[in-house]
Amino acid sequence: MPLVGNHGVNTSAIAISNGVKQLKDIIVGLLGFGNVGKGFATVLKKNKAYIESTLGCSITIKKILVRDPSKYSNTIMPDTLFTDNADEILTDPQIQIVIELIGGVQPACSYITKAIRQGKHVVTANKAVIALHGKELFELADKHQVSIRYEASVGGGIPIIASLTKSLAANEIEEIVGIINGTTNYILTRMDQEGMSFKEALAEAQEKGFAEADPTSDIEGEDAAYKLSILTHVAFGVDINPAGIPCVGIGQISEKEIDFARQLGYKIKLLAMVKKNGGSLNVHVHPALVPIDHPLAAVNNEYNALYVKGNAVGELMLYGKGAGPLPTASAVWGDVLEVAKIIQNQIKDTNTIRIKNGFEPGNISSGSNAYYIRLQVIDRPGVLGKIATAFGRNSVSLESVVQRGRGGKTVPLIFITHEAEWDNLNAALNEIKQLDTVEEVASILMVQSRL
Amino acid sequence: MPLVGNHGVNTSAIAISNGVKQLKDIIVGLLGFGNVGKGFATVLKKNKAYIESTLGCSITIKKILVRDPSKYSNTIMPDTLFTDNADEILTDPQIQIVIELIGGVQPACSYITKAIRQGKHVVTANKAVIALHGKELFELADKHQVSIRYEASVGGGIPIIASLTKSLAANEIEEIVGIINGTTNYILTRMDQEGMSFKEALAEAQEKGFAEADPTSDIEGEDAAYKLSILTHVAFGVDINPAGIPCVGIGQISEKEIDFARQLGYKIKLLAMVKKNGGSLNVHVHPALVPIDHPLAAVNNEYNALYVKGNAVGELMLYGKGAGPLPTASAVWGDVLEVAKIIQNQIKDTNTIRIKNGFEPGNISSGSNAYYIRLQVIDRPGVLGKIATAFGRNSVSLESVVQRGRGGKTVPLIFITHEAEWDNLNAALNEIKQLDTVEEVASILMVQSRL
Repeated sequence: MPLVGNHGVNTSAIAISNGVKQLKDIIVGLLGFGNVGKGFATVLKKNKAYIESTLGCSITIKKILVRDPSKYSNTIMPDTLFTDNADEILTDPQIQIVIELIGGVQPACSYITKAIRQGKHVVTANKAVIALHGKELFELADKHQVSIRYEASVGGGIPIIASLTKSLAANEIEEIVGIINGTTNYILTRMDQEGMSFKEALAEAQEKGFAEADPTSDIEGEDAAYKLSILTHVAFGVDINPAGIPCVGIGQISEKEIDFARQLGYKIKLLAMVKKNGGSLNVHVHPALVPIDHPLAAVNNEYNALYVKGNAVGELMLYGKGAGPLPTASAVWGDVLEVAKIIQNQIKDTNTIRIKNGFEPGNISSGSNAYYIRLQVIDRPGVLGKIATAFGRNSVSLESVVQRGRGGKTVPLIFITHEAEWDNLNAALNEIKQLDTVEEVASILMVQSRL
Repeated sequence: MPLVGNHGVNTSAIAISNGVKQLKDIIVGLLGFGNVGKGFATVLKKNKAYIESTLGCSITIKKILVRDPSKYSNTIMPDTLFTDNADEILTDPQIQIVIELIGGVQPACSYITKAIRQGKHVVTANKAVIALHGKELFELADKHQVSIRYEASVGGGIPIIASLTKSLAANEIEEIVGIINGTTNYILTRMDQEGMSFKEALAEAQEKGFAEADPTSDIEGEDAAYKLSILTHVAFGVDINPAGIPCVGIGQISEKEIDFARQLGYKIKLLAMVKKNGGSLNVHVHPALVPIDHPLAAVNNEYNALYVKGNAVGELMLYGKGAGPLPTASAVWGDVLEVAKIIQNQIKDTNTIRIKNGFEPGNISSGSNAYYIRLQVIDRPGVLGKIATAFGRNSVSLESVVQRGRGGKTVPLIFITHEAEWDNLNAALNEIKQLDTVEEVASILMVQSRL
């Protein structure tokens, strides 16, 4: 009989009582009791009947690790559950699943490592740990015959990891384009719908709890890059350091740009994208123009969405709340229920991603894309000819050119290119900057292709 | 050791060869080789490496049931696989999974029943069999300790069943609203975007293969009702006969109605809806006005989408191709891979839906809704007052009234109501019909609430 987690942990899922087989309770320990931890406990209170009818037995939170247990009297959980000693969870032989909801790389990663070595299954919502150390942790979990699950680390309540690893498992994934940062999507939506400036929209997002006091990691695309690195690993079996992903944030996007984009039939969204391109992957986080009739254009406010292209399923989009205590807890619970089933059925699970499609981790480029270029130019006959010539000389072909307004000192001249290599575009723009009629290259954005 | 499928079937998933444990091949039989069957085989050819790396072993299609094997020479599968004798699949002890892709109630249902009795697992894409006989089949499968999976029966390639039963298992589901019929969505989209008439759009849909020669079941909402019945069973544990679902099709929708709706900020979509309403469920299939900024409004052409509200995850929408050989095969393959894992790990699976939330099957109503009412009235002072009084007297309160155009024999007068009970609305409309200034109640549509 294959046994899992046989390192001093209570692994026998079936008890015999009066000759009747009965599933034993599942016992879990919680690391962290912030917003998501509280959400996790709240969902158990609210939906105990659903959870236990799925499990076929009851589930108990035995201990909760917090920094200062004295601060946790009168929460929805009994005071006696709180501890500041991680080992009371990590080395308790009764605890079968460790649920890590602390966030940040350390000490979360050490706790997860120790839990695995102790033969415990792990569920985590931690994007940083999985993006930076996922591969080692999956291998370690395989070695110790335990499971690690991380659905909540990308897209909050959206079941993207389960879809990629299970429902779509017979597909070759060709492309994933995601709106996976709620903060920036909220800001861009408010700028678009209310004509707010970036600053105003950011202030409102902070007030409503959609942006942190220090929003740098969200605004500059770092948060999205972590999540994209996880998606790339899951969908393509390729391990990339998030710091190596070409990444542009939304700090430079003005309400004027959003307005120009709207007039041309586009919304501006911060897209995280990974796309197969022959033997390499194009991976980047970049603000992009999304055609108004593309389903991603309808993803507003704090919502997230993942647009996936598979070679059997075609286009699929999953849309939902990418953050928040309850949506995130919903995903954590989905994982816990799956791991409970693994325990109950003594399933031999594999955590490492086994996809073999020959992509080398080094072989990452941001690829060829269509671009939106806004120049500020002096409104004089002949200016367009010189610019168009510079594009053409560098193999950048144009889909459209629009001039907005007349008579100012300079006027905006907007180009949408066909797919072009970044190096070619860059060379063209360097020539264009030299022209005495061109005041500035005011904006360079990507353009998402139509459905 | 718990054994599954121990009715003469080769259930041992693990072979010992030279002292090394190795997973044995998975062997399946196919019932039907129409579009989806061919899609299933095509996906195996294309993505064998992905499928087998997920499985950890190889998978073989041993036999394919067709009506006339002589017609299947030179397909992508060897001629020798085709048979017209179902028992060559249903009673072959080597075949572990029977994949039913014939469609229609009979003989598909008898084949599935026999396969289960023979201890075989079943994967099916058959909405009619699952909607009409799902409950008995799930119970039979539990009795015989085999699994039955039917992801492809609703929403083609969209992983809605897996999401409801697994990722969202800790949620109480409050509402599901679906665009789950591609034919009608294609027609409505073309009428909206190109100003086509219903007839023109239907003809185009037939030409492009999005509508059948006899489109009645799609147009009248019957197809959607079958799928809604499956969703209701999975999400609420309630078994309803599709014929008992209040159902209105799109045959009465004119391009003029779509135009009026657009002017008011709505798209018209055929929605299949099930919604918790205290101790009962509101269930119906009905054309409805969807606010333009609702994500369902952006679901165009042959695409499907399922909008789910759970009490933890909040709003979630899954969007994708609801039909077609490859998207449907993608979902069938997802199920086959799951069942293969069940075989390999000798998992004790439960097929019956265990949700207990006290809804009685009889307790189905179409509930209270906001409505769009278009009257054709004689343009004369005082007409609005009489109509508004009739609505008020019957407890139907109004959100807005718009009159379009002037000077014809009659003019359209459009009302959007707040949530109202159907019986009250009906009573109001009966009074209104008696007014001599009212020529006709030209249209009654539901209105989907805003996000």
